Amino acid sequence: METVPIREIERRIREFQGKLAEKEVDIAIIAQNVDLYYFTGSCQSGYLVVPSRGEPIYLVNKSFKRARKESPLPDIRHLLKFRTLPQILEEEIPNIEKLGLELDVLPTSFYLRFQNMFPQAEIIDISGAIRELRLIKSPYEIDIFRKGAEISRQMLEAVPRFLKEGKTEVEFAAELECFMRKRGHQGGIRLRQFNQEVFYGHVMSGENLTYPSFFDSPTGGPGLSPAYPQGPGWKKIGRDEIVIVDYVVAYQGYCVDCTRFYSLGSVPSLLKEAHAAALTIQEEIMKTAGPGTICSDIYRQACQIAEDFGLRDHFMGYGTDQATFVAHGVGLELDELPVMADRQDYPLQTGMVFALEPKMVIPGVGVAGVENTILVTEQGLEKITILPEEIIPV
Amino acid sequence: METVPIREIERRIREFQGKLAEKEVDIAIIAQNVDLYYFTGSCQSGYLVVPSRGEPIYLVNKSFKRARKESPLPDIRHLLKFRTLPQILEEEIPNIEKLGLELDVLPTSFYLRFQNMFPQAEIIDISGAIRELRLIKSPYEIDIFRKGAEISRQMLEAVPRFLKEGKTEVEFAAELECFMRKRGHQGGIRLRQFNQEVFYGHVMSGENLTYPSFFDSPTGGPGLSPAYPQGPGWKKIGRDEIVIVDYVVAYQGYCVDCTRFYSLGSVPSLLKEAHAAALTIQEEIMKTAGPGTICSDIYRQACQIAEDFGLRDHFMGYGTDQATFVAHGVGLELDELPVMADRQDYPLQTGMVFALEPKMVIPGVGVAGVENTILVTEQGLEKITILPEEIIPV
Repeated sequence: METVPIREIERRIREFQGKLAEKEVDIAIIAQNVDLYYFTGSCQSGYLVVPSRGEPIYLVNKSFKRARKESPLPDIRHLLKFRTLPQILEEEIPNIEKLGLELDVLPTSFYLRFQNMFPQAEIIDISGAIRELRLIKSPYEIDIFRKGAEISRQMLEAVPRFLKEGKTEVEFAAELECFMRKRGHQGGIRLRQFNQEVFYGHVMSGENLTYPSFFDSPTGGPGLSPAYPQGPGWKKIGRDEIVIVDYVVAYQGYCVDCTRFYSLGSVPSLLKEAHAAALTIQEEIMKTAGPGTICSDIYRQACQIAEDFGLRDHFMGYGTDQATFVAHGVGLELDELPVMADRQDYPLQTGMVFALEPKMVIPGVGVAGVENTILVTEQGLEKITILPEEIIPV
Repeated sequence: METVPIREIERRIREFQGKLAEKEVDIAIIAQNVDLYYFTGSCQSGYLVVPSRGEPIYLVNKSFKRARKESPLPDIRHLLKFRTLPQILEEEIPNIEKLGLELDVLPTSFYLRFQNMFPQAEIIDISGAIRELRLIKSPYEIDIFRKGAEISRQMLEAVPRFLKEGKTEVEFAAELECFMRKRGHQGGIRLRQFNQEVFYGHVMSGENLTYPSFFDSPTGGPGLSPAYPQGPGWKKIGRDEIVIVDYVVAYQGYCVDCTRFYSLGSVPSLLKEAHAAALTIQEEIMKTAGPGTICSDIYRQACQIAEDFGLRDHFMGYGTDQATFVAHGVGLELDELPVMADRQDYPLQTGMVFALEPKMVIPGVGVAGVENTILVTEQGLEKITILPEEIIPV
């Protein structure tokens, strides 16, 4: 099985230690599975202890054997009981004054236990530092995105083989899921934000295109019940309907996000215009943005173009369910940095990867637009997902 | 779309308020999506405020429209900004002295914000009370389990149609996933415990049967990469191999867990013995347990029978990766109460639903056993998942 190269792990740890030193944090304890994977190459359960200088220790509860096979870190130990953690650290790093934890994802009960374990330590949130590090993708990571993008391309090109009038949305979706899975889709897609979850993504048709949901996205979808209220429903796909395929590929951990629209018959002219507006937004951003462009400026630019088309009220959703971004970072999680939204006042940098998804939501009519996963290079923006962007007639 | 009946919601809220009053908690604020669904019938994002007496208020951020369609609660309001929460509550419930939160799942950053919002309040963990309520399933919920069990039965019976020598594990798995999904599997399976996650479950063959993972279960599986290290891998299914199908059905929110084993050719005699031992454990528990039986006693009984067969070291895993339970509750989450394990010293009660999964793991040989979803009735234990339990030759 392919494991993360040692040079990747060493660089990530070193850069993280630089950030810890800056913040005068003595040690960080990483607990979340995705962050564990990023820094160790394994997400076997346990804790990665990173001192601001010196060697990190990966304390693994289960499976210790597997962690040693997956992670190139030299110091991996078997952690039998969580409560022995302070003892183990006492020997290595005495007098911890400032302890960093992932406070954005760590459940409160764990936080309170850490507080009890290290009563003398000030606990600070190091999730910002981790998200900043993960924001810039290495050539090794970009190579994995390209492999995932290939699965996405194959699936989207195969859509006409599966999309048939009279099928339920979930039947059609199941076939696309099966297609991707056989080619290496890992299944689970991870999100960092509390309560956010997604199963592959959004496949809907006709009136279900504008079905709203909790999910922080322009589209929602009914899902099969209010218990999992998102994505394809029981509705049959009908004649003259638009179908969205917004399915994420998660390959070797990394998320590739791409959307295309298909039509079974005629397309309402309002949706044609909305589609043209969305493509214009994408085109303008592709032309003007690159390293140094401020993320919030990109969002403002997108909103302005939507406004020029008379579609500002329909851009990225409608009414109280309107989303307030035009792009989101992708990586080991689907909701990474950078985000193109208000108040995101940092510049694009080479190595960032994001999903740019200008979409228009017109209640009673449908949804149109496009989504591509995009890499920031020294030259500008490069699409990782490449295939036709028109509404594809089936 | 089928929604949760109002009588269900009213009873749940009333019983929860009883528990709040017992603990002298003034209000509870429910934030996690699964708990929200349990108490409101909707998991649209927001907060359910439950005072120890009086009407609950469901404050919804997104989608407000959808929450009103899904939840029968009378007081649903649109929450535009999280920070306005204290103002809203101030008018309804002044002087909050004791505030209940789900500290087992609530991220620390939310906890710290609540602390700031209600500086005068003592915050206590009400997740225990919620898990206790959810432990007893209503006839309405049990009916949903039976529908999910029917999908599980159909899929397990269809296995011989899909299971072929030479297919990769993930190809075979993808076909079973597609089969269940078309029949109403919601896709996402939820777990309460931090970092625990599962995509459908475990489908493995031959040597991969004993591949260990972080997952708190007797089996693990390689997965497709260390980034998602669980379940089916790239290995081809071979002649004379045993195949496990331990796939969860999540239907209208509820998880049905069932495992069967299949063989492509001969079965090693050691696995036949292990299988017989596991079936004996199940049979003995089915015969002797019922309302009033202490959960930890059931676990001890299971361990004793494994011991009698000379298989204690292989029961529920092997070596440092051995799991320490024989059954886990199932419901809206896969890791509910009751748990049959040491220190779980409470009795079974009518309406509890759990997955009983005696399994034997023999490194270098394979895995055998059985898993059924079981309901506690006044008469004893009743299997919800019913189909042959032998190792099925294909």
